[in-house]
Parts: sequence; C-alpha cells; structure tokens
Amino acid sequence: MAEANDFDLVVLGGGSGGYAAAFRAAELGLSVALIEKDKVGGTCLHYGCIPTKALLHAAEVADTARDGAKYGVQSTFAGVDMAGVNAYKDGVVSRLYKGLQGLVTANKVTLVEGEGRLAGPTSVDVSGTRYTGRSVVLATGSHARSLPGLEVDGDKVITSYEALTLDRVPASAVVLGGGVIGVEFASVWRSFGAEVTIVEMLPRLVPGEDEACSKAVERAFRRRGMTIKTGAGFAGVERTDAGVTVSIEGGQTIEAEVLLVAVGRGPASDGLGFEESGVSMDRGFVTTDERLRTSVPGVYAVGDLVPGLQLAHRGFAHGIFVAEEIAGLNPAAVEDTGIPRVTYSDPEIASVGLTESQAAERLGADRVETFDYNLAGNGKSQILGTQGFVKLVREKDGPVLGVHMVGARVGELVSEAQLICNWEALPSEVAQLVHPHPTQSEALGEAHLALAGKPLHVHA
Amino acid sequence: MAEANDFDLVVLGGGSGGYAAAFRAAELGLSVALIEKDKVGGTCLHYGCIPTKALLHAAEVADTARDGAKYGVQSTFAGVDMAGVNAYKDGVVSRLYKGLQGLVTANKVTLVEGEGRLAGPTSVDVSGTRYTGRSVVLATGSHARSLPGLEVDGDKVITSYEALTLDRVPASAVVLGGGVIGVEFASVWRSFGAEVTIVEMLPRLVPGEDEACSKAVERAFRRRGMTIKTGAGFAGVERTDAGVTVSIEGGQTIEAEVLLVAVGRGPASDGLGFEESGVSMDRGFVTTDERLRTSVPGVYAVGDLVPGLQLAHRGFAHGIFVAEEIAGLNPAAVEDTGIPRVTYSDPEIASVGLTESQAAERLGADRVETFDYNLAGNGKSQILGTQGFVKLVREKDGPVLGVHMVGARVGELVSEAQLICNWEALPSEVAQLVHPHPTQSEALGEAHLALAGKPLHVHA
Repeated sequence: MAEANDFDLVVLGGGSGGYAAAFRAAELGLSVALIEKDKVGGTCLHYGCIPTKALLHAAEVADTARDGAKYGVQSTFAGVDMAGVNAYKDGVVSRLYKGLQGLVTANKVTLVEGEGRLAGPTSVDVSGTRYTGRSVVLATGSHARSLPGLEVDGDKVITSYEALTLDRVPASAVVLGGGVIGVEFASVWRSFGAEVTIVEMLPRLVPGEDEACSKAVERAFRRRGMTIKTGAGFAGVERTDAGVTVSIEGGQTIEAEVLLVAVGRGPASDGLGFEESGVSMDRGFVTTDERLRTSVPGVYAVGDLVPGLQLAHRGFAHGIFVAEEIAGLNPAAVEDTGIPRVTYSDPEIASVGLTESQAAERLGADRVETFDYNLAGNGKSQILGTQGFVKLVREKDGPVLGVHMVGARVGELVSEAQLICNWEALPSEVAQLVHPHPTQSEALGEAHLALAGKPLHVHA
Repeated sequence: MAEANDFDLVVLGGGSGGYAAAFRAAELGLSVALIEKDKVGGTCLHYGCIPTKALLHAAEVADTARDGAKYGVQSTFAGVDMAGVNAYKDGVVSRLYKGLQGLVTANKVTLVEGEGRLAGPTSVDVSGTRYTGRSVVLATGSHARSLPGLEVDGDKVITSYEALTLDRVPASAVVLGGGVIGVEFASVWRSFGAEVTIVEMLPRLVPGEDEACSKAVERAFRRRGMTIKTGAGFAGVERTDAGVTVSIEGGQTIEAEVLLVAVGRGPASDGLGFEESGVSMDRGFVTTDERLRTSVPGVYAVGDLVPGLQLAHRGFAHGIFVAEEIAGLNPAAVEDTGIPRVTYSDPEIASVGLTESQAAERLGADRVETFDYNLAGNGKSQILGTQGFVKLVREKDGPVLGVHMVGARVGELVSEAQLICNWEALPSEVAQLVHPHPTQSEALGEAHLALAGKPLHVHA
C-alpha cells in the first residue's frame, strides 16, 4: 500500500507554477502528486489576477456607462452594486476553477488536498501521510506583506485579500504602495466612486517600469481625481470610528474609510520544512540556479517563491520548464527580461524587456536609442478616447531591447512586443510588416517604422 | 513658371495608398505632388475605416451600458442620440485629418486640390494645369458598388456612404451583402436598437474568411437577434411609404425602413484617362505586376485600384513600397497573404494567412494541421463575457500558415499573428515564449502550446 504514495514527481503547491509543472510532467508520462492546502489555481485564480481583473472590467463598465454622452449614447451610471459585482467576479472564477479541476483529472494528476511540508529531499508529508517523488517541486507561492508594526486587521486595515471580497465600495481609501497591486485597486475604487489617495515611498508610481510610464500614469490618475503622494514614507495609522487616520513622514495625515496595504508580496515559505531539509533560502525566498534547481539535488522551485518577477505567467513558464528539465528535454531557461508585464489599471501599463535606464546602464547611454509614439496619432486610440504612448528602446543600429506602453487596452499589445524582443528583431524587420488599420497595434507598427527611419503617420 | 509643375513624383489620389507613397517619397528626398479632389485621407479616413469604427465603438458603449447589471454596475441605456454619435465620430475624423494635413506640410509634399486626369505616361492634368513627374502613382481608390438595376437613392436605398451620416437609427434595416462592410453596419445598427436582416447570396457571411469564422459570427449575430439569410439572391426592391420591400429570389419579401447596399467596392477609375494613356485594365481595376508597375513604364498603381484585398493598411504598404521602389531601394514586394484582416463587428473577426481550405488546396489536406482554442478557457475573455476561438492552420511539422479568430477585441491580437505567419514561425518557437496572464493574447499562446504538443490549459 505504501507504494501508492510514490510518484515520479511531487509538487508542493497548486498555483500557477505548481499546476503547470504537474500538467506538463503528466503529459510527458510522469506520475505526479500535486499537493494543495486550499484550491488548485492558487492566489492567481482565487485571490489575485483573475478576481482583480474582473473588478477592473466592472470598473471599465462603470466608466463607460458614466461617459456615454461623449459617444452620443444615452446612458446613466448610478453606482455599483457590490453584491452583483462580486457575483460576476465569483462566477468567472468558479467557471475557470471548474475547467482547471477538469484538467487535473484529464491529466491524471493525483491531487492531494492538505498542508504539505517538505520532509527531506524526496518527500513531502501531508497530515501524517508521506508522499515521495524522485523529484520535488516547491511551488508554495507568496502572500501579501505588511510593514513592521503595521497590523492588518482585515476590516479597516486590509490587504488585497480582503479588498477582493469587500461588500461595499469604500467612500474613501488610502492605498499604501504604488506598485501594480496598489495601482490596480486605486483604479477600481476610483471608477466605483471612491476618493482615493496613493502613498508611495519611492519617488514614483510603478517604480519597476520605465519612468515615462510612471509619469503618464500619475498624470492620468490625477486627471481622474486621485491624490498621489510619492516620496512619502508611511509613519503610522490610527483606527477611528469612521475608519483610519494615516500619517505620513513629515507630519501630514489623511483620513479615510480603509487603508489598503499593498507594499508587496513575500514568499510563502514559513514552517514548510524547507530550511530543515537543507534548501538554501534568502529572506524567505528559495534561491535557485537558472535551471531552477535548489541547493538540494532533485528539489526545484518555481514561481513567486523564486526571487524575481511575481507573475502568474512566469509561474506557468517555470512550471513547464521544470517538468521538461526533469523529463530530460533540456529546455531553454526562462529569463525574466523576456517576460511581459501588465498593470491593468485605467490606463493600462504594459512592457517587456529593458527600460531606457536599464539599457543605458548595460550598454552606455550613447548606445541606446528610443522612440516615443504618441497615441494621439493612433486612430483607434482616438476612437477609444485614450491617451498614452508606445516607447521603444533599442540598441543603436541593433535590435529592440524594450517596449513600454501606456493607454487603454495596451496589455493586449505586449504579446507582439514580447515576440519582437525575444526574437531580437530589428526595427526595420518589424517595419517591413503590416499592422491592421485602424487598431491600437498600429502604434507599435508606427513606432518601428519611425525607428527604422521611415515614419508614416509621424514626422521625425 | 512651367517648371514649378515638374516633380519627381506625381501621385493621383490622396487616400491611404496615395499619401503613404507621397510621404515616403518625400522622406527619400523626392519632390512630390499629391493630387486629391476631395480631402487628403480619402475614403478610409473620411468615409470608411475611421468613421465606421467610431460608430462601432459607440455601439460597444451602448451594449456595455445596456448590460451593466451583468457586471454589477447600475447603468441604464435609453438609446442613442445620433447627433451626439455623429459629433463624436466627426470629432475623431477631424482631429486625425488635422494631423494628416500637418504631415503633408511637414513632409513638404505639394498638395494639389482638384480632379486629376492621367494625360500620358508622365503627366496628370488638373483643371487645365499639367503636373509632370518622372514617375506617376495611380491611387484613386474605390467606391461603393451596387447591383445591375438596383438604384441607390441615398434615402431609402443607401450605401455605406450615406449610412455614415444618417441622422437617425433606422427602426429596421435590410443589409444586402454579408461581407465586412455589411456585417459591420448590421452590428452597429443592432446595438443601436434596430431590427436587422442580412441578405447574402453566398452560402455564408464573410465568405473570404475561414468557414469557422463565418459559422461563429452567424451564431453570435442570431443570438443578438439579427436575421441572417444566406444563399439568398436579391430579386428586387420596392419603395413604400414606410421604406422598402426587399424581395429575395424564391419569392420571400422583407419590409424595412432602409436597404443598405453593401455588395462590395469597385475601382474608381472611370474617366480618369487611364486606358487612353495605355494603362492595362481589367474590369476597371488597374493590373500590375508584383512590383506594382502598370503596363506603362513609370506609372505605378496602389491600393484598392489594384485587384486584391481592399484594405487601408494594404494601401499604406503599397504606397511605401512604390516610393522605395522608385527611389531605387529595391524593397520586398507586398504579398496579400501576409496582410492581416479585421472585421470590427461584435464579435470581431481577425485573420491572417491561409484559411484551412486554402491550405488544404495548396498542400493537400493530409499536409495541413489545425488547432481550435476555445475562448471559454481564456480568463480575460471570460471576464469580458465574450465567446469565440483562435484557430491555427499549419503545415504538418512546419510553420504556421494562418491564424483565424473570432471574439470581442481580437482585432488587436492579429498583429502578433501576422508576425508569426510572416516570420514563418513554428508553433514550438512561439510556445517557447511567454504571454501575459490574464490577457486574450494568451489564447494565441495556448493554441501554439497545444499545436506544439504541450498544451497547458487545454486537454488535447
């Protein structure tokens, strides 16, 4: 009977990275146990990407209805019904969850429900039962972090976890942290009618992005009536009857109904036996080489547990990579620079590859060339009523190294941009090809035409 | 003084193909006269792509407001105010027109306003003044066609030209022709509240697209409450007090307020001196070789005047090509198969390359492999509430030959698809790269993963 718990591969954690590893390994003929304490799909499907994007779409619907007159449409907007919004959001999640459960079955992956703990280089214990694998993949993901001394109470001081299930639109909110998560919730709540203040310690919002993106989003958010405080350290929060009073270093205070703590996500690795089993760690993250091997032979790590971009699609790519590596296919390593990034606020931010300053640092500023295409010249963007740009970063006389975009719906354009960057295309090679008119994707085409020295709807 | 009318290049027609040729030639140092009888920008900007897409966006706004409750948004829709819709549409057109006029000036192109007539291999006459060029580009475009015996009166029986400036939403409409233009207007009017019947002689809507696209759009249109009559020949129309009575072969009749004639666009070449100057023609189109040379040395033709896809971005590509050809840069020829196609209805249709049946015809059915990815598995499509698919056509063990998509907003995805097709990528090469989650573009990624034998969110 003990043999029933022996597998080729044991995956600890059923989020994006974990289930991708499990599915791909199963396709390649390995027997796989996938251990998950909550629901397959993990943070992304249940508490992250998918539900936030549903809220963001409801926000887009709200803004569209509010602004109908701009387009000659007689529409009204009377507010959101959060029960309805949540029912819509939960409906999306549960349909996708059902599909995912079907894939677990179809792929003949053994799903083990329970809390797993690494018990050695080849075994994971779940409630007293041991699962052994010739290989083990750690995929336990991440959780919302707070600041030292800032207690999350889940009511007045919340993280994205609670923000996703609020049964009301807060009249006012302070969003602590201007990274992707903070910016997305700020955008949603503003569309739903809240007064929103973003407090960011660094000098700009979305500090991981090209500076041009930060500037454009700050400008757009101010136009939308949000208050942005950058270079503003958090000093403290006091609960009041009405909500919270948030203090910023320097003495300023802000009153609001809720404080959303969006200061980043930390690795979910506490008490899981990683260190006891000899897995090298760095501030809670599992350190790996570029082939995602931990310090313990046979044990791999994927996704948010591995330092770098915290993105579901990086998890998918890691999971597929590790499964193929274990199966001996010798896949190409997954590089963070080739992975596209999207912030789904209004306006959206989408990028891939190097920012202008990263490129200048690597190559020297004189070896870097950029081009900014303003969406004011793009027909479809004018039709949508959005502002923004497509910025290309290239090596002088060389390939495109980075693409950075701001504007409604630009998240869908970055898939083409990542092909261009990953295939190291020259601007002239992209300029040779035809983008459909009138689409927003033409802005990418126009930017490449201009950088190739043959601008069309732009005067260089 | 006569010398003032001598140019390196004379372009007859200031639409997409004409102005692209003019701008690119000017960039390359040639002196250029651009002759236009109406407004620079041509049909696309003033009477085609741009205004129809503005109407289609107003339609999207209307549908969004009407369906707010699905997303928990308390919105209402009380109809459209066509004066407002037209003001919005005209605002978009006039902003883009202003930008384009600025580009004419910035590029130092001499704009000649008036009706031009080819007067020989190197000259065009405009109201008694002769403009001569070492090269001449014919770019006079196309106009809406009708059927023999079907008289367009501009009131009850109209073409897209009048449909764009209607001051009301017709209570009911018969759309004669289920191609791109017919399908787009049907979609707009339905969103605005009209009863719509599409009458198409061929067995399916958008007959130039892959059959799977036709089926999906017909199903979606029926769900939207439209009546679709395919395989239905037009027999006649009678004007009535209330509008029109349209007869279909076989005896059926349909009453409606207007009849939109959308049976295609013919070349605008009548009475322009082409044949008299020795330019070979075929049923009004100008025939060219693959380098867009007409039968008269030094005279080229571009855009809708040249048999093939009638698309503004093909015009741009033709124009750029011809300018570079004339300047001696020896550019690569523009192939219709590499040009993406979008129908901007709800749902959208977007495609590039070969349909399944075209591929089967060229390679033999046993050498063709396809994969259909259903958008039901795509998170962002679920969030948008759209149905559809991404269908890939490849040569067995070979590159991707065609991509065919149906669904909301898929028009933006075809720019990546055209890179894939034009660069003759293998599915495994695309599968190697990462699409952002959750976007609709992931559907392209998933389809390539599946076709590469490593499906992720799909069980093959």
